[in-house]
This record gives sequence, C-alpha cells and structure tokens, in this order.
Amino acid sequence: MNRRARYAGDRTFTVDDVELDAPAAGQVRIDVAYTGICGTDLHILHGAMDHRVRMPAVIGHEMSGRIAELGAGVTGWAVGDPVTVMPLDWCGDCPACAAGHTHICHRLNFIGIDTAGAMQQSWTVPADILVRLPDDLPLTQAALIEPTAVAVHDVRRSRLTAGEHAVVIGAGPVGLLIGKVAQAAGAQVTILELDPHRRAVAAGVGLRTLDPGTADPSADVQKQTGGAGAAVVFEVSGSPAGVRLATDLLAVRGRLVVVAIHPAPREVDLHRVFWRELELVGVRVYQREDYDEAVRLVRSGQVPADALISRVVPLDRVADAFTALETGGDVKVLIDCGGEG
Amino acid sequence: MNRRARYAGDRTFTVDDVELDAPAAGQVRIDVAYTGICGTDLHILHGAMDHRVRMPAVIGHEMSGRIAELGAGVTGWAVGDPVTVMPLDWCGDCPACAAGHTHICHRLNFIGIDTAGAMQQSWTVPADILVRLPDDLPLTQAALIEPTAVAVHDVRRSRLTAGEHAVVIGAGPVGLLIGKVAQAAGAQVTILELDPHRRAVAAGVGLRTLDPGTADPSADVQKQTGGAGAAVVFEVSGSPAGVRLATDLLAVRGRLVVVAIHPAPREVDLHRVFWRELELVGVRVYQREDYDEAVRLVRSGQVPADALISRVVPLDRVADAFTALETGGDVKVLIDCGGEG
Repeated sequence: MNRRARYAGDRTFTVDDVELDAPAAGQVRIDVAYTGICGTDLHILHGAMDHRVRMPAVIGHEMSGRIAELGAGVTGWAVGDPVTVMPLDWCGDCPACAAGHTHICHRLNFIGIDTAGAMQQSWTVPADILVRLPDDLPLTQAALIEPTAVAVHDVRRSRLTAGEHAVVIGAGPVGLLIGKVAQAAGAQVTILELDPHRRAVAAGVGLRTLDPGTADPSADVQKQTGGAGAAVVFEVSGSPAGVRLATDLLAVRGRLVVVAIHPAPREVDLHRVFWRELELVGVRVYQREDYDEAVRLVRSGQVPADALISRVVPLDRVADAFTALETGGDVKVLIDCGGEG
Repeated sequence: MNRRARYAGDRTFTVDDVELDAPAAGQVRIDVAYTGICGTDLHILHGAMDHRVRMPAVIGHEMSGRIAELGAGVTGWAVGDPVTVMPLDWCGDCPACAAGHTHICHRLNFIGIDTAGAMQQSWTVPADILVRLPDDLPLTQAALIEPTAVAVHDVRRSRLTAGEHAVVIGAGPVGLLIGKVAQAAGAQVTILELDPHRRAVAAGVGLRTLDPGTADPSADVQKQTGGAGAAVVFEVSGSPAGVRLATDLLAVRGRLVVVAIHPAPREVDLHRVFWRELELVGVRVYQREDYDEAVRLVRSGQVPADALISRVVPLDRVADAFTALETGGDVKVLIDCGGEG
C-alpha cells in the first residue's frame, strides 16, 4: 500500500492509503525517504495557488529516496539506487525549448505543483527526471539538494566571482542557501535580515549578518568595499523596500538578482541603473548543471544541510509540519515519508 | 579670434568673440567644423541641468573638426588631421576606474557639460580624447559619430546577434541610430513610435515601423517571432508606459536595455522578469571600441548620417537651431562652427 498526504483546499490535508501504482514504460517508482516543505508548498496550503493545483493534490518536490521498481525500457538505474529529482517536465516544442531554455518552457509542468508530488511513501515519476545521489550522502541531507540547486542557479546567473562582495537581502531558507553557495564561490557575503532568530541561524552557519533595522546597509557596504559597492545583490525578501535598497548597494556594473517572486510590479530606480550600468537578472528554478553542483556542495558540507534541517515530522503529521513552519522559528522542515526504512 | 556661443541661463545664448587660447602641454586646439545638438543640450537650455553647468557655458559635445595647433608633448597628430572626440575625462583612481570602467568613473567630467564644449570656432581639449577620422568622411557626417557611438554601446551591451528580433521604443535620434546599428548587426528591427512624422523618418531610412497607438505591439511581436517574443527591447521613450510594454514584448532570456534616462523610479513587472528570466541592462555613454565601430558604420553608410541631418545652422544663429529642434520636425540639427571653410 501507499500512504499519501493530500492538500484538500481550505488549509487542510488528508492522509490515506491507496494501492501501489506500477510504473509505466519509462517510469520508475521511488520509495520516498524525506520530502522538504518549500515556500511554494506553504503558498499552496494558504490557497494562493488553488487556480493551478488540482485538488485533492499530493504536493512536494524537495525529496530524496530509493528506486523501488523500474518500468519497461528504463536503463542505467537499479532498484535501491538513491535518488532525488529535478521536478521539471517540458514540452520540447515551444520557442523557449527550441532555444534550449527547457527549464523556462512556455508550457512547463512543475511536478509536485501541476501534477502529483512527493509527500507520499511511494512516488511514480518519469525516469528522465532522476538525479543520482552519492551512496554516502544521508537521505535527510539529500532532501536539500533541490533548494540548493535553486541557489546554485541564482549564483551562476549572477556571474559572481571569487573575491567579489555579495549582499543577500532576506535570510529565509533560500537566502541562507544563496549565502552559503556564494561563499563557496569565494565571495565575501553579508546577509541582511530584520528577524533576530533568522540572523542567529545565519550567523550559526558562518554568514556575516547585518540588521537593516538598526544599521545602515549602504554605509556598511561602502566600508566593506572601499567605496565601490557590492558586485551582486540577491533580493530574496520580496518587499518593495528590498528592491529599493538593492540598487543603492550596487557597484558600477553590479548585478541585482531578483530571486523573490514579486506578485505586483515594483518601483525600480532606473536612473541608478543607467548611472552605474547596473543589470537586473531574472532567475527561475534550475538546470541540470545546477544539480551537479548542488550535490557536490551538500556532500562536501559547504552547504551545511544538517544545520538547516530544524525538524523532521512523520507523514501522518504533515499538517503539524506546516503549522510549525508557519509559526516561525524553523528553517527547513522535512516530512519523513517512511521510505528510509 | 574665437567666436563662441554660451548658454547664459534662462533659455538664452550669447555669442561673442574672444582671444584664441594657446593649447597647453598635452592639449590640442581644434578648428571646429560642426557641432550637433543633443537631447542633453536641450535639457541644459531648459534649465534642467543648471545645478551642473557653470554659466555662462559653452556646451556641445557631438562634433567634428581639424587640428589647428598642437601643445607641447603631443605626438601622433598633425595640424589638419580630421578628428572628433570622446568627451570623457575620468579620474583614474576611483573604484570604477580601478575596475576598468573608466566611462562610468565616480567623478566623471563630461566635456561639454561639466566643462567647456564645442559650440565655438576654436576648441582646446586634451589630446587623449581625440578620435581619428578617415580623410574621406565628410565632416557633416562625422558630427554624428558621437551619438552613433552611444547606439553602438547600447547594442553591444544588449548582446544582440544576427537573426534576433529587436524592438526599439521611441524613434527620436537615438532610437533611429539604435535601429540602424541593430540592423547592421543583422537583427530584425521594429521601431515603435506614436508620432507620424518620426515614423516617416524611420521608414525613410529603412526601418520597419509600428504605431503603438493603433496597432498592438505584443500581437505584432508574437507574429514576427513565431510566438517567442523579442530577444531585445531598447526603451528609448523614457515613459512609464514604455517600461511596462518592454517586459511584455520580451522572449524567454530577453534583454531590456534601459536607454532613456528615467528621472523617477518606474514600476517594473518583476514577476515577468522572474517568469521569463529576463534581464534589464543599464547603459551609459560609450567606450573607445564603440567609437571604432561608429566610425566604420557612418563611413560605410550603414548609419545614414546625411538622411538624419535635417538642418545646418550657422553659429551666430545657435538660438534658432535650438528653437527649430524644440518645435519638432527636425531629427539632427548641426551648428556650423566655421572650421570647415
């Protein structure tokens, strides 16, 4: 049997058991070990994505597990292999796919949002989304590879190089991961965060923090950079104030990476964009090469997965896991889906 | 004697004659042939830059002429050489200069705005701002090399490649030059302009035009590009509506080049920037390599300078030249400073 948790609308989950699906040709069935809760999953719980999610819906896309069963024609994989997934399913036909940007396909199916996800014991997916894990990587840590791939993609798109100064606005899970990935790239990183608990977590994983409520970030960046400004700012707060601050902090030819999803248009200081030849860079999910780097960074400990996992909750208590995350104090909460043994 | 026109504040010019300045060491004196009027010069006349211009001020920086006298220590140049200038004087010490971005020096002196410019018969400048002209290039046409270098810089920063589709929003002189430079780069170009006279000028120099007041630019771009969207949009209108439209028109990974100077912050659709991984690119003046390309394009006729010069006015009647430009109908107006004959 397969135990699954489903978002049923109106801020509720239901948990039930169903028969196992046999994988079709080209598919594999995974015994899911852990599934992390993403900010998008919280948005789904809050009803903000009811237009997109077909209820009742198994959600979740930050996962780790082991292959349990192979469908016909699947080669290169064996039962027991540890895996995570890159949960993107593109059309292959649209102009974006034709240009090689399959991760921003015009008709992208995001698995775990648009179709069934990983908050279940047993998950059947196309074999071509599998990502191989090292045998020695704990599956708890491996559940953080997908959000780490987001951070790797964002840092790669920023063209950040060793020795440059980067500022991260917002120390939620994605901000923390970007900070650590930027450090691994050799950058000097400062993370701005109003919340003292989040600042403490950031400091605990070795990030330099600043409280923009009491200190002046512009003066700090000027001092840190000898008057040049930051080479890169990652805007992860989603706030109008974050966007305003970001252009002020940047050096000549600096890059502002728009990581947070801003639901409404934001005022941008285009005069500053002109005066310093700034760039704004949009970022969305990841590509295969970002997963390769994410696996390397989590395995090496440069992304300190254990320090970022604040809670592991069994699948039966999925609602409690979301409540814990909503009430604050947690960083990354994992659902134990039972596949680890 | 040297005849000069000076902006004296309050929308007025005075013209007078003064003794010739002998060039100091490292300087040259130029007999100025033609000086074009730039949008910035119009802003100066309107008083918008009185905080920056020391009145009475000789302005003007789009020029052509011949070397009349060499100061001590100037080598590589001879009296009679045809020249234009790259009117930038940087400090060499600030973080931008140290990073090699001298054209965006923190303390940039823009010659012709911050210090004396070319609306005079005889102009003395540092030899290191000289740009050599081909002997066979008419000096009227050569006065358009500086604004063409602006357009070359903007197109270069856009990373536009042959076969890509570009949209230019606004068919003023800079928009027209960008359109022609983009065509020379092998792009498919459409220029959007509300004003019928400007559209006629654009069509006259071989640009595909569209009236955004009557046609739907988004539908047009979709049709032109098989549903992909434009690879590059140049925002040259300076309007909030132009910025809004630009992000709508862009393909996945498209680049929005912010050419116009937006005095106030503008609303930008950052959700679209995320969804399509767009980039916004700031651009300011030019670098030496942009002049090399600008000389090549004007000389080859790919930038049709003669078709863009709508009027040539003698120095004594400089005020009339500005009035003509203000009242519309002109594209590029040159001041004949007397150095050609």
